[in-house]
Amino acid sequence: MTEVSRRRLFGYAGAGVALAGAGATAGALAAQPKAAPRVVPFHGEHQAGITTAAQDRLHFVSFDVTTDKRAELVDLLREWTIAAERMTRGEEAADRGAVGGPQHAPPADTGEALGLSAASLTLTVGFGPSLFDKRFGLEEARPPALADLPRFPADDLDPKRSGGDICVQACADDPQVAVHAVRNLARIGFGAVAVRWSQLGFGRTSSTTKDQATPRNLFGFKDGTNNIKAENPDELRDHVWVRDGDGPQWMAGGTYLVARRIRMHIETWDRTSLAEQEAIVGRKKGSGAPLGQAEEFDPVDLHVKGAGGVPLIPEDAHVRLAAAESLGGVKILRRGYNFTDGSDGFGHLDAGLFFICFNRDPRRQFVPMQQALSSKDTMMEYLKHNGSGLFACPPGVRPGEFWGQRLF
Amino acid sequence: MTEVSRRRLFGYAGAGVALAGAGATAGALAAQPKAAPRVVPFHGEHQAGITTAAQDRLHFVSFDVTTDKRAELVDLLREWTIAAERMTRGEEAADRGAVGGPQHAPPADTGEALGLSAASLTLTVGFGPSLFDKRFGLEEARPPALADLPRFPADDLDPKRSGGDICVQACADDPQVAVHAVRNLARIGFGAVAVRWSQLGFGRTSSTTKDQATPRNLFGFKDGTNNIKAENPDELRDHVWVRDGDGPQWMAGGTYLVARRIRMHIETWDRTSLAEQEAIVGRKKGSGAPLGQAEEFDPVDLHVKGAGGVPLIPEDAHVRLAAAESLGGVKILRRGYNFTDGSDGFGHLDAGLFFICFNRDPRRQFVPMQQALSSKDTMMEYLKHNGSGLFACPPGVRPGEFWGQRLF
Ligand code: HEM
Ligand code: HEM
Repeated sequence: MTEVSRRRLFGYAGAGVALAGAGATAGALAAQPKAAPRVVPFHGEHQAGITTAAQDRLHFVSFDVTTDKRAELVDLLREWTIAAERMTRGEEAADRGAVGGPQHAPPADTGEALGLSAASLTLTVGFGPSLFDKRFGLEEARPPALADLPRFPADDLDPKRSGGDICVQACADDPQVAVHAVRNLARIGFGAVAVRWSQLGFGRTSSTTKDQATPRNLFGFKDGTNNIKAENPDELRDHVWVRDGDGPQWMAGGTYLVARRIRMHIETWDRTSLAEQEAIVGRKKGSGAPLGQAEEFDPVDLHVKGAGGVPLIPEDAHVRLAAAESLGGVKILRRGYNFTDGSDGFGHLDAGLFFICFNRDPRRQFVPMQQALSSKDTMMEYLKHNGSGLFACPPGVRPGEFWGQRLF
Repeated sequence: MTEVSRRRLFGYAGAGVALAGAGATAGALAAQPKAAPRVVPFHGEHQAGITTAAQDRLHFVSFDVTTDKRAELVDLLREWTIAAERMTRGEEAADRGAVGGPQHAPPADTGEALGLSAASLTLTVGFGPSLFDKRFGLEEARPPALADLPRFPADDLDPKRSGGDICVQACADDPQVAVHAVRNLARIGFGAVAVRWSQLGFGRTSSTTKDQATPRNLFGFKDGTNNIKAENPDELRDHVWVRDGDGPQWMAGGTYLVARRIRMHIETWDRTSLAEQEAIVGRKKGSGAPLGQAEEFDPVDLHVKGAGGVPLIPEDAHVRLAAAESLGGVKILRRGYNFTDGSDGFGHLDAGLFFICFNRDPRRQFVPMQQALSSKDTMMEYLKHNGSGLFACPPGVRPGEFWGQRLF
């Protein structure tokens, strides 16, 4: 016990223990003891928060840009980058911060994260289609892959939970740290941006590295088993990172983020039999094994047949419809979070999955996949997509650069 | 590192390490390393979740009872008690749970907490004034102390976030565990109760034991410094636990819970100078020390004067108005949580404090305190109370008893 306590104390006492720098793999991060105040490197070839081992908490925010001056937008991105880098190191948003500045001025940091560690904070920025309108002269720079999402069958989107010019995905192992980061970005942006919508999430619904045990979503199923993992550079290259020549050069090394707020009708689900639930997903609820297999990580075999030649994984099972095999090889990197937002006013919890995925070209990946799911997936009977966002996440920044610098 | 990892592994591997039983003080709980899967004893003289060292996460739910049959209500409380006891031990809500039952029946647990530890889960039940109407023949049993709260100046209460027949406060160190518990209680209650409102909270805004470092609220101030602590039996006896003779006998050993959803206008606050913020609270932002003192835990001295004989802690400072000295000795046990619920639709985060307090008689404690604060506290300019609840929390249950048994 003393050994543990002393080490913990030591860990907390430091301002934050940086890992092996930009070279640290997400896998190494996941293997760190949870209590250590982990710092995820901010700079790198790609933005953090994509292949980073999924942290426990999410605060996702979408902003409308309220200024129409390009220079103010650029200034903001510059200021944001400095603050973001500081906060991911576990520092305050600005020098002298919450209590070190002049007494008769508003503090430069809001203070609620004083004394907390970096908690693996990552801040990932993305630009929505609406940013590329004529306000900022960015029409020409809009990537063709950033095409507005089509309306999918059964979509029930709330404009107040959809769209936005700029998104920031804040992930951390402490919600107060994620909330603090978003709030300070909003504060810095006062007069230039306004919060359009924001979403808190908890629990990882997706594991993004091999070292993480697969967490469960609110249907009680392991979620993230057959995901692209950070340890698989080939899959990342083929399905996640934008390449030279894929579109405008400023996006090379970036990726596209799709966010969907998916309400889950958990009360109806909870009255569905175990057999039916497993048929809908195509996996066992307990072990997470594909139907017809024994272990969670056994490959999904869509061809195994049971009695009467009926496939064990039904034609309308979620994992069949979403499988690369059914979609001409298409894959995505999922990185969603569970949410519960109080009650829906009709006696039920407003709960679900805040689905986030990263892909190289949504037109060829997320869109056909969601077309298939929204038209054929039996799970859709228990779901309602009520928020949606699409954002182009620029590549990582080098020291001295700012978020999206290559776009401007 | 190996030492830490092995111990952590060991900690996680067990089904949950029960502490020294009902005798364990909240202080001992707080001293446990955070990662250990802690079990807080369910049975005892008082309900858990009141003097228990505040866990990191809250899921608070208020139910309307939809049946008008007393027997069904009693059955529900009986079933709930069994499930609550199981879940606080880290078990599934019912025997055979999520995957152990018949394939062709809905599972007896929703499954999203499979594989997670007890995470210090506590479930605390309370009965609202509306439960004591004629539906269940409980009019006579209504404690006089459970008098409807008056309307306070500047109250802006939303009926959809207020009131309710029964509340359950679920606190845990893992939000998925707290959400799972509330959801399974709602599922068990299907047909007898409906969710009226629910609230997620994070970060402890109040420390309730001496071993916990004081966390910060979303104004960036340490919150909970001058709180009743679990280690102080005299204060608990005087201000928290209902005594024999205080009212109906079924409440002896219980307490009254007041919940207030307090929206904080953080954007306005963030543009207020440090000096002004400290004058409003009456404490230093950095250290948490009372104005005029050096250290956080130095006693508040309301009489220290500065230049010109003006009191250092202003007449309208929060800590002066809320101090026992200003209120004829009145104290409360605070146990609130921060919240962030997306955006308010006007470009701001909907964030604040979900205030929870426990007191022996709200008519003599919470009500006069909130009267003073709502009419004189400068902090009110930055606050909006938009939800409210009052509940009688019965005493703890003995093995074999059910929640509120002595009421029925
Ligand atoms: C609330 C909504 C959803 C729930 C509850 C859900 C749940 C699941 C579960 C339990 C699995 C199996 C475990 C795994 O391999 O991760 C899975 C797999 C998958 N899901 Fe979903 N999912 C949802 C929405 C979506 C959406 C919107 C997409 C994309 C458009 C998607 C794409 C996938 C993919 C690609 C897989 C892996 C399939 C394979 O085995 O190749 N899911 N999902
Ligand atoms: C969002 C609303 C509120 C905020 C931000 C807030 C913040 C604070 C802060 C920073 C302190 C000083 C540290 C401490 O001793 O804990 C404090 C003390 C206190 N607050 Fe509040 N508070 C709020 C609402 C309330 C309400 C509604 C009540 C009760 C009606 C209350 C009762 C108290 C009491 C009793 C103290 C201790 C005063 C003493 O030193 O004796 N607070 N609060």
